[in-house]
Amino acid sequence: MLFTVDSMVEGVHFDLRWGNFEGLGARSLAVNLSDIAAMGGRPTACVVNLAIREGISTKLLDRIYAGLRTAARESGTDIVGGNLTRARELSITIALLGELGGAAMRRDTARPGDEIFVTGTLGDAPLGWRLLAGEIKARGNARAYLIGRFFRPPNRLRAGQRLAAIKPAPSAIDVSDGLLQDLGHILERSRVGATIDATAIPVSPAYRAVMGDDLIHALSGGEDYELLFCLRPGSRESELTRRLGVPVRRIGRITRRRRLEVIGSNAPDFAKRSGGWDQLRDLTRSND
Amino acid sequence: MLFTVDSMVEGVHFDLRWGNFEGLGARSLAVNLSDIAAMGGRPTACVVNLAIREGISTKLLDRIYAGLRTAARESGTDIVGGNLTRARELSITIALLGELGGAAMRRDTARPGDEIFVTGTLGDAPLGWRLLAGEIKARGNARAYLIGRFFRPPNRLRAGQRLAAIKPAPSAIDVSDGLLQDLGHILERSRVGATIDATAIPVSPAYRAVMGDDLIHALSGGEDYELLFCLRPGSRESELTRRLGVPVRRIGRITRRRRLEVIGSNAPDFAKRSGGWDQLRDLTRSND
Repeated sequence: MLFTVDSMVEGVHFDLRWGNFEGLGARSLAVNLSDIAAMGGRPTACVVNLAIREGISTKLLDRIYAGLRTAARESGTDIVGGNLTRARELSITIALLGELGGAAMRRDTARPGDEIFVTGTLGDAPLGWRLLAGEIKARGNARAYLIGRFFRPPNRLRAGQRLAAIKPAPSAIDVSDGLLQDLGHILERSRVGATIDATAIPVSPAYRAVMGDDLIHALSGGEDYELLFCLRPGSRESELTRRLGVPVRRIGRITRRRRLEVIGSNAPDFAKRSGGWDQLRDLTRSND
Repeated sequence: MLFTVDSMVEGVHFDLRWGNFEGLGARSLAVNLSDIAAMGGRPTACVVNLAIREGISTKLLDRIYAGLRTAARESGTDIVGGNLTRARELSITIALLGELGGAAMRRDTARPGDEIFVTGTLGDAPLGWRLLAGEIKARGNARAYLIGRFFRPPNRLRAGQRLAAIKPAPSAIDVSDGLLQDLGHILERSRVGATIDATAIPVSPAYRAVMGDDLIHALSGGEDYELLFCLRPGSRESELTRRLGVPVRRIGRITRRRRLEVIGSNAPDFAKRSGGWDQLRDLTRSND
């Protein structure tokens, strides 16, 4: 059985001025579903703790709940309980139960020589977040696409289940804090290092339109909820893409030496300079 | 399977100036355990969401966690996961899983003629809360006793399990929002009414020392986490007390007419005047 909890807090993870309250509700479940996906599981039931502050209308809460209910239905999750409390800021905390068909994917099973893969594209959601927060400017389709990626994290449940069926089970994690930080968790738990090829990092056309060659948000932005996983060498991207039903890109390799290196002509200076993931972690934004 | 969530929020449910951080940690689990007790279940595992603000020291968090771990160990609950997030106020949200030996006690099975019972004493914890908040004054043993009752809600897990073994299974609820409000939930769900005899409400000597004959906090204070339950007529208080291992008092009766009446020479005016629990609910303090 899998059991996970995650929270979205006003002023930290979102701002009500951004609107799209249905999106907030859906996202509050999606961030939990992502944990289950990264273990290869299937969600079953959740409970919802809603902390509300003065000035929050019933209509706003209804819209958040509508988005949450839709996300629950689409993912086969039953909302079985809830709690309402007062607070000084709005927050949505969800605890989610899941179950496994077979073995769980773990963070401590990566081995030197393993190849590192990632699903989808990276950096879109953190850019969307920064557009909403006004930290970055963009217009038109790119803006809409990136903001959409923030409000609708990808559903990687099926991809995670298919991935968990591979023998031996891959080491895996979801990209919630940023690629380098989340990879760091695998490296720490597996007591290994890694080399990442920046030229292989998958980014969307919208990301490129806004950021050009700057990979900082793709490497350390967080919020993307894609899957990062390590496989014994020899898998082809095209074969994995077919198997998982989502685009898969090979981005590096697990090494014996316990440090995280980012190579490639477009590797950001902060990443090249790094002596390890601890330093990287300090350098990257964390809103958790 | 039982699945419940509850939250304690700084400035709403507690104030850090009250100290006793271990007590806060223990209480944050106890309020969840109470839900499981009221269904007759056994807790199994929990996840903890800790929202922390600036100015909260690691040492303070360690003390909260120490209290939480002790409460978990004492109740046979495994802490299996957690999440840390930033916020503007400290809050502890716990989602708890439990399991049932037999049938769950429900809120919708009370029938006219059933007798209404309550465990322990009522009003101590809300008085403790008010003493801590400085709304009420008291000294010495009474003060210490009432504050202790706030920080250490009773553990009614075993009593709940024994109660659930009675056939037919009693309708039951835990007294978290206040006797009249929580009884109101049973009445609503069971589509019945009730008459409560104020002279039978069990209060502690400390309660009486501070409040005299005023039953307002015992009837509507909340926070006590005692069990309230309804049984087909004929059970004796002494027999139930022996069976459940806690003092049990008969306080009233379920009626066909869908209103909640409080009778007895010491019934508070607000309760006597009430036409039903909806009005009572409006009159009572709710910090949820």
